[in-house]
Amino acid sequence: MTQDQQQKLQQIRHSLAHLTVAAAKSLWPGTCNAIGPAIDDGFYQDFDFGTHTISEKDFPKLEKRMREILKHWKPFKEWEVSVEEARKMFANNPYKLELIEDFATKGQKITVNDPGNFLDLCRGGHSDNPKEDMKHFKLLSTAGAYWRGDEKKKMLTRIYGTAFFTDEDLQKHLTMLEEAKKRDHRKLGVELDLFTFSDLVGPGLPLWTPRGTLIRNLLNDFVWELRRARGYERVTIPHITKKDLYEKSGHWDKFKNELFRITTREEHVFAMKPMNCPHHIQIFKRQPHSYREMPQRYTETTMVYRDEQTGELSGLSRVRCITQDDAHVFCRQSQIKDEFLKVWDIIDAFYKAVGFSVLDVRLSLHDPKHFEKYLGTPELWKEAEGSLRAIATERAKQFTEAPGEAAFYGPKVDFMAHDSIGRQWQVATIQLDINMPERFDLTCVNEKGENERIVMIHAAIMGSIERFVSVLIEHHAGAFPTWLAPVQVQVLPVSTKHDRSAKKLTKLLLEAGIRVHCDDANETVGYKIRKAEKQKVPYMLVIGDKEAKLTKLAVRLRGQQKTKDMMVKKFVERVTKEIEKRK
Amino acid sequence: MTQDQQQKLQQIRHSLAHLTVAAAKSLWPGTCNAIGPAIDDGFYQDFDFGTHTISEKDFPKLEKRMREILKHWKPFKEWEVSVEEARKMFANNPYKLELIEDFATKGQKITVNDPGNFLDLCRGGHSDNPKEDMKHFKLLSTAGAYWRGDEKKKMLTRIYGTAFFTDEDLQKHLTMLEEAKKRDHRKLGVELDLFTFSDLVGPGLPLWTPRGTLIRNLLNDFVWELRRARGYERVTIPHITKKDLYEKSGHWDKFKNELFRITTREEHVFAMKPMNCPHHIQIFKRQPHSYREMPQRYTETTMVYRDEQTGELSGLSRVRCITQDDAHVFCRQSQIKDEFLKVWDIIDAFYKAVGFSVLDVRLSLHDPKHFEKYLGTPELWKEAEGSLRAIATERAKQFTEAPGEAAFYGPKVDFMAHDSIGRQWQVATIQLDINMPERFDLTCVNEKGENERIVMIHAAIMGSIERFVSVLIEHHAGAFPTWLAPVQVQVLPVSTKHDRSAKKLTKLLLEAGIRVHCDDANETVGYKIRKAEKQKVPYMLVIGDKEAKLTKLAVRLRGQQKTKDMMVKKFVERVTKEIEKRK
Repeated sequence: MTQDQQQKLQQIRHSLAHLTVAAAKSLWPGTCNAIGPAIDDGFYQDFDFGTHTISEKDFPKLEKRMREILKHWKPFKEWEVSVEEARKMFANNPYKLELIEDFATKGQKITVNDPGNFLDLCRGGHSDNPKEDMKHFKLLSTAGAYWRGDEKKKMLTRIYGTAFFTDEDLQKHLTMLEEAKKRDHRKLGVELDLFTFSDLVGPGLPLWTPRGTLIRNLLNDFVWELRRARGYERVTIPHITKKDLYEKSGHWDKFKNELFRITTREEHVFAMKPMNCPHHIQIFKRQPHSYREMPQRYTETTMVYRDEQTGELSGLSRVRCITQDDAHVFCRQSQIKDEFLKVWDIIDAFYKAVGFSVLDVRLSLHDPKHFEKYLGTPELWKEAEGSLRAIATERAKQFTEAPGEAAFYGPKVDFMAHDSIGRQWQVATIQLDINMPERFDLTCVNEKGENERIVMIHAAIMGSIERFVSVLIEHHAGAFPTWLAPVQVQVLPVSTKHDRSAKKLTKLLLEAGIRVHCDDANETVGYKIRKAEKQKVPYMLVIGDKEAKLTKLAVRLRGQQKTKDMMVKKFVERVTKEIEKRK
Repeated sequence: MTQDQQQKLQQIRHSLAHLTVAAAKSLWPGTCNAIGPAIDDGFYQDFDFGTHTISEKDFPKLEKRMREILKHWKPFKEWEVSVEEARKMFANNPYKLELIEDFATKGQKITVNDPGNFLDLCRGGHSDNPKEDMKHFKLLSTAGAYWRGDEKKKMLTRIYGTAFFTDEDLQKHLTMLEEAKKRDHRKLGVELDLFTFSDLVGPGLPLWTPRGTLIRNLLNDFVWELRRARGYERVTIPHITKKDLYEKSGHWDKFKNELFRITTREEHVFAMKPMNCPHHIQIFKRQPHSYREMPQRYTETTMVYRDEQTGELSGLSRVRCITQDDAHVFCRQSQIKDEFLKVWDIIDAFYKAVGFSVLDVRLSLHDPKHFEKYLGTPELWKEAEGSLRAIATERAKQFTEAPGEAAFYGPKVDFMAHDSIGRQWQVATIQLDINMPERFDLTCVNEKGENERIVMIHAAIMGSIERFVSVLIEHHAGAFPTWLAPVQVQVLPVSTKHDRSAKKLTKLLLEAGIRVHCDDANETVGYKIRKAEKQKVPYMLVIGDKEAKLTKLAVRLRGQQKTKDMMVKKFVERVTKEIEKRK
């Protein structure tokens, strides 16, 4: 889609929020509307329905009224009004009145719009052909949302919807949403027993069960294996620090609201780390480094903490405790390219093994209009962005450039994965940091015995393990590749008289290094099969009279009804090979 | 030593604090004394020397004056005085006056003492034969200490000293202290490049270098290997929680001052975890458990945080962030013994491999005089202590019982290691918890389909990895067994013309799974040897003309002057064997 098309679609979606309001007001008089923006993939509109309770059951009625009203809509007119006029126009809507007072205080201009029969307060950006352009819409869901995102304020009803240029696009999107619902990691995570949340611990703080931890560790061990082969070394840091570290690094300013702050009994101010780089820098700085010792490649998988608002939290996608598979390479200017390409190799190898064979590449640059958001000088940025562009040009099949997407300390190369239902997720990142080395005066002693300024590379392969596991669960719909499946083989004795054989087989497979579970519960084999299917175990071995001798096995593959006869040895070979090859 | 002897030695040491005061006041008039208790292995006395600065250089003079005064000392007299009398007696000492007002406010009685010529305020417990008993003493060191341990109050001078029954015991102790100084992990930790501290991060928060992290991971991986073989599974939790969890568990009360507290931007109160059990309990409680699934054995190596006072922090021995190799076994009453013995096996195997072959065993019981310090009923405690006593009786060669040393939720078995210079360290612990299962209503569904109350076992093998590594460094004086040495073999080319051979050998050893470092710096081989010796590398291989062909090697063992000729293959076999056998 071109940028123009994107903008037009946003205007259509935003205009639909107005249409939702017009219809709701006509159905339920006294309804007040709050904000209603376009968002990724659609729009939402917040309502105060007063004494009414509106749910998804009301959508057919609401959509019908929307279509009736839409017939009479003309291109939106937008015009400016005075504070006084605005106050009169929206005298019955306390939310609009609060916004009006805000605009007045800040001296911002106030605009209203009207598509023919419905006046609303709005900044603008609407459809210029409502009747035709706005008709491919659908309301999707409701949710609670605090007025102005502040949980001390009133809880409003948010209605989500979406719209597309064509009905075909709309239907495709709705099918994708249906599929996404089935794959929702919050639902599958419980069914597969990977993680849990506790009201006593609090939202946004997942607790990982043995099976979930196993997957995390398998993924993390694999990343470490790839890194170790490239000269990385592990380091270990605490999760807190005196604020002094972040004042020096600039994080105290940049992460202000998101920092969990601690005041000790001695009244020192500490913070929980939202990032690891300043701590790793302190390890680098413990002693001078000769050029012979460069690069120094430090890696650590460790949790960082961010004070997210409760309303923003969602499953593993948005959490307060984020496990990063972080790495920092301290290297000379002349080593940047080599080190970047090494990380790139790791990313390629890793994503192939977890089932994402193609990654999109994005070169994330600074926003030239808002240079104040970044550390450092334009010269430093120009040079850094130039060297990343050269690397991306050489290595990537293709890549896009995205001004405004850089980190505050330097430009980066981001990697985007496409999941099996067509969604795009930002995953790995390699960042070039030209500013922390300045701030912390990081150097090595070069061949001439002089202190030489070095650079830093920040590189995360999974990024947030929580978010990555959520993507992975939804991508595979919980059916992980064998090497990642918490249980690889489930052995199912048909009745108690087959228990002994089943246990013997279980022991044999265990000793072959296979993660195997014997389901010896006092249940029918049909029920046991359904349980194993629900847990998406790659292989099921039903042990009845025929299999009890443990020569030939009846192997049932995940997702298949028919079993396949296989000799025990062949079966072990097959599974072992899949594990070794990470399939 | 009997308990009587222990008490007598304490009285002697405490009386010596008074003697230090008497001597200091006579040498430096105007000196005020604050508190002066007996401590493990000696005593200390806090002073306000006014305008004088007293250092260890003054000790000969001070000790001489102490001996002069001691000649005239008689058995201590102790008697009670009124507040008014006390105020008059200590009118010139603001510290004593503050204590007197405290006692008065609390309605406590005030006692003074006098060994003949020196009146002091004191609770009592002194030598009854000063002239003879107090003569085997020695002053050791000075340090700064805040009045009442409060860093907002005045910094005083603390003088440490020690005393024994005989001169022989005193000399033995002084020799041990000399040796301990050489082994001080704070000094060796820097020389071996294992960890560092940063002023920006703050005290009590060690940053682990690649070599230090390697040792941590080797130790931790070994513990995990032992646990995995016994059915343990890893879980993962965040480092924070809502305070609700600790209100329910009782930690909010028990750990009050030591909890790092966080108030979020939404003004929720969170705490950093000082323990892991309540979090692990939430994982156990995620679903009902059949008796078939019991025991559930969760383990996690994770950091806990405690708000220790700055003055109490010391190297790795006392830190604010403690890495625990923690485990919690949720099991039925009938499984306690089996599970306890499994942990005991792990402890025996682990400590043997790290060089502590004998561990003392202590059964830590509740203090019957202060039952209010514990959760639960006397009946629960009696039963729990009984079952641990039975296990200890069966398994331990011998053990002592220690009332008052239990955890607040249950009795425990503690393990004490003796290091190579005779010091004793509490290391591993196995704890039986009868109270958390009550508080959190933990059950399994038993054979009859009923909910059955279970118990918990808390088990740490190293306990705090920080503290354990400090003990390990000092025990081995940094010369770790080969399997734990960060660098196992150092290759030292004599000159640049031997670099190629040296690098070839390095690659060969690396491929054999040996941690090898080639020191190709442009330095003399003598200097390189001294560096490797300082880093306590187990094996040095000097590569000169004779060795360049890489058939026969000149192997230099750690701590030995002479080299030993060895074929490359033999050498690799020897080192590999040591690594595999954890020697």
